[in-house]
Amino acid sequence: LKYKVDINSDLGESYGAYKTGNDEKIMPHITSANIACGFHAGDPTTIAKTVNLAKKYHVAVGAHPSFPDLMGFGRREMHLTSEEVRTYIIYQISALEGFARIAKTEIQHVKPHGALYNMAVRDEELSKAIVEAIKALNSELIVFAMRKSALASATSKKRLRVAYEFFADRAYNPDGSLVSRSHPKSLITEPRLVVRRAIQAVKEGTTQTDDGETVNLDGVHTICVHGDTPSAAELVAVLKKGLTRAGIAVEPVGRFM
Amino acid sequence: LKYKVDINSDLGESYGAYKTGNDEKIMPHITSANIACGFHAGDPTTIAKTVNLAKKYHVAVGAHPSFPDLMGFGRREMHLTSEEVRTYIIYQISALEGFARIAKTEIQHVKPHGALYNMAVRDEELSKAIVEAIKALNSELIVFAMRKSALASATSKKRLRVAYEFFADRAYNPDGSLVSRSHPKSLITEPRLVVRRAIQAVKEGTTQTDDGETVNLDGVHTICVHGDTPSAAELVAVLKKGLTRAGIAVEPVGRFM
Amino acid sequence: LKYKVDINSDLGESYGAYKTGNDEKIMPHITSANIACGFHAGDPTTIAKTVNLAKKYHVAVGAHPSFPDLMGFGRREMHLTSEEVRTYIIYQISALEGFARIAKTEIQHVKPHGALYNMAVRDEELSKAIVEAIKALNSELIVFAMRKSALASATSKKRLRVAYEFFADRAYNPDGSLVSRSHPKSLITEPRLVVRRAIQAVKEGTTQTDDGETVNLDGVHTICVHGDTPSAAELVAVLKKGLTRAGIAVEPVGRFM
Amino acid sequence: LKYKVDINSDLGESYGAYKTGNDEKIMPHITSANIACGFHAGDPTTIAKTVNLAKKYHVAVGAHPSFPDLMGFGRREMHLTSEEVRTYIIYQISALEGFARIAKTEIQHVKPHGALYNMAVRDEELSKAIVEAIKALNSELIVFAMRKSALASATSKKRLRVAYEFFADRAYNPDGSLVSRSHPKSLITEPRLVVRRAIQAVKEGTTQTDDGETVNLDGVHTICVHGDTPSAAELVAVLKKGLTRAGIAVEPVGRFM
Repeated sequence: LKYKVDINSDLGESYGAYKTGNDEKIMPHITSANIACGFHAGDPTTIAKTVNLAKKYHVAVGAHPSFPDLMGFGRREMHLTSEEVRTYIIYQISALEGFARIAKTEIQHVKPHGALYNMAVRDEELSKAIVEAIKALNSELIVFAMRKSALASATSKKRLRVAYEFFADRAYNPDGSLVSRSHPKSLITEPRLVVRRAIQAVKEGTTQTDDGETVNLDGVHTICVHGDTPSAAELVAVLKKGLTRAGIAVEPVGRFM
Repeated sequence: LKYKVDINSDLGESYGAYKTGNDEKIMPHITSANIACGFHAGDPTTIAKTVNLAKKYHVAVGAHPSFPDLMGFGRREMHLTSEEVRTYIIYQISALEGFARIAKTEIQHVKPHGALYNMAVRDEELSKAIVEAIKALNSELIVFAMRKSALASATSKKRLRVAYEFFADRAYNPDGSLVSRSHPKSLITEPRLVVRRAIQAVKEGTTQTDDGETVNLDGVHTICVHGDTPSAAELVAVLKKGLTRAGIAVEPVGRFM
Repeated sequence: LKYKVDINSDLGESYGAYKTGNDEKIMPHITSANIACGFHAGDPTTIAKTVNLAKKYHVAVGAHPSFPDLMGFGRREMHLTSEEVRTYIIYQISALEGFARIAKTEIQHVKPHGALYNMAVRDEELSKAIVEAIKALNSELIVFAMRKSALASATSKKRLRVAYEFFADRAYNPDGSLVSRSHPKSLITEPRLVVRRAIQAVKEGTTQTDDGETVNLDGVHTICVHGDTPSAAELVAVLKKGLTRAGIAVEPVGRFM
Repeated sequence: LKYKVDINSDLGESYGAYKTGNDEKIMPHITSANIACGFHAGDPTTIAKTVNLAKKYHVAVGAHPSFPDLMGFGRREMHLTSEEVRTYIIYQISALEGFARIAKTEIQHVKPHGALYNMAVRDEELSKAIVEAIKALNSELIVFAMRKSALASATSKKRLRVAYEFFADRAYNPDGSLVSRSHPKSLITEPRLVVRRAIQAVKEGTTQTDDGETVNLDGVHTICVHGDTPSAAELVAVLKKGLTRAGIAVEPVGRFM
């Protein structure tokens, strides 16, 4: 097939007695799992289960490191030194790595979580620290980032591979950034529309704003689907089928980058 | 040299702004460092520093996993399921492993911390879970344990190497167990006596109780020195010198086991 | 009405982004809420919401203190010193107290959570520490305990009021203890049976074992209903109606003790 | 005496096995203690000890609430919602309150800690949330703030009392803000100079910048002395003596505001 794309989702976000997400139902339909590493979610028992589940469905394992903020689920901005960022990232990826090895798989990618991801869109120093940590550990790891982000630039500059993410269920601004969640039209929930947008993003490398303006995405390697909505499993199944029917191979990004 | 022994100490027990221990002064005189992995002590920045310090002094790196109890410094008994124990241990050793790799060294051993170590002296199920975790990760890892302990037995049963620890600064009961810390004579602080006891333990494989009874230690591979007392650095320097003078080579246990 | 009883449930067990329980649906049907105080569950925002919800439905507010074990939801035994137990309990009740004052209500009772509750059934020293903490803060607080427990004895000895709990949905042993959760017949899920058992417990002060043996309960002040099952809201509604129909007034325990 | 001033210091910042500060030595020389409440430091056992120590030396008790960041000692900026700020502050002050009541004292004041204090210098929304929390709990509480800060304004607007802090050991900018800690001349360590500056601040309401410019302080109610330096106890003793000799009564701020 001429076109290839990866589908990623945030999984393993339970914590002890707190169960969240639909991991069992989503895993069969995605190709890359971003697994929480204990700082915003994901106690060790959850990590072990999630890695095993990924292995079972041939889903590539990724680290989903976060600020140390369990009370806020990693969604709150924190201002750390570069050394703190580096060592926190190393700690989390490493912790996951052992579970991957035991499951006879390995870590394919790293996707910063929540506020860490959002801050890395525009913060160069933070992005540099994130990439340094990843590179120090394993320069084969692929970094998931938005095309127009400080994280993508920092990754390229350090000569690591960066997979550009497309958010099929989020509206875009003309400059390629996401419409803020606080905006009423920020979320796209109609499955057929999500599929259509994903196909256009992969095949044509573009998407439409709400006003019909065309945004150039400059390439899409992986499509992010949120796993925490009740209908997420359904949506991701429809998405995978739709992409395949459109002649797009859905595979872990590590296989075609 | 005919005789060989390792000296180990618990290091890297700072946490964020909380600084504890005399790592800089102790590291030059020991051969194995038990490094806190974040559950009772040891934030990621501290772990990075401690691993680098160990590397600088050619000290072997070991994981010092604990119950998840920062408020109690891992010194309080907790009753977990075997699955929890296994995954918590895997998480902590793995987290350390990345830092070791970045420092171009590797983990030599694992020594459970605090209440986890104490419970593993007598609890077979707990010991089994600990050893299973270690073996799943890396069957080359050496387990530090008391000679007469469930942990030592479980380690041997799983065919992993176990290094028997001798506590040179602690009084022993006739059955080879340690005199409880609550007992006034439990601690031996006179440096020359500590050195003499260490030499006897290594060369003759025995130690004396307070009543002069001889305890058969059945082999000693590593001598534990506590790093949290003000005089620890001095004691460990004296100990190393004393052992060397007595014709005992002081080396990381991984080199001679 | 001649007979009175209280219905209590554990609520406010969400934590940040982790939502659990059916607080909105259960609150209208109970008379006492055991509110998590942050150590096993219950971040401050959740506490505030839960206290306000209790106030709205005229439900008495109680503290539900726990061991400091978020990763294990307070369900794992921990061995603390009496001083630690005392200060941890004081901290948690006090933290709740401010929210109660702001909502113009006050704390009626204290019910230890999870492993702390279970250990206090048999551990006298632990129970003494719990009661000392409660008494030091406010000797008007009512302690929820099983009739045959070290906690009930310790509470009476310190001259605080103790409310005996009956678990309407749990099977009892002939000695008045609960059948272990690991036993297949430990849980009673058939609503009519739960109601019948509750009525018998209140009116006759007895319950039946699975073998039909009669257990003397020596008085029942409050009936515990678990809020974490999907059908909990329904069950508690049925229970309240059933008790009322049987001529039993359902009221917060503080009104009739 | 015509002049009065309070001396405050951050105490109770130990956590479990981590001991920090010189509380025993500083407490006799201050009049207001800012006590950590568990979010950046201060486990419940430490809180109990610190409150008792304050009581012993007739030192007024204050709450020292923080962002929930034990790993960073509350020194890192976090971006929370106003509701989170409000409930986190309520939780921490309330938790302390019970210990105060048991020690037969009460909370006099609230001083936000670390990054929360620093952000409240300029962030109006954050300051509003802090003051709302304090007012909801107890409108008699005094808020410690810098004269030129959003927190001072928000406190006055809500009609709570605000005590203006003077940092006797920190250099000031012409606009009344503190010289950044990263600047080499930010700290003033010479005790006699610290005393002289404190006297001038209290009597004349002014201080000098490094360039000799006079800064109008608009009133000083309390002088902050850092307790975490080795010489802190000595400095604070000298300061108290110096102020007294200069005819300034050193008393808890609650007595003269």
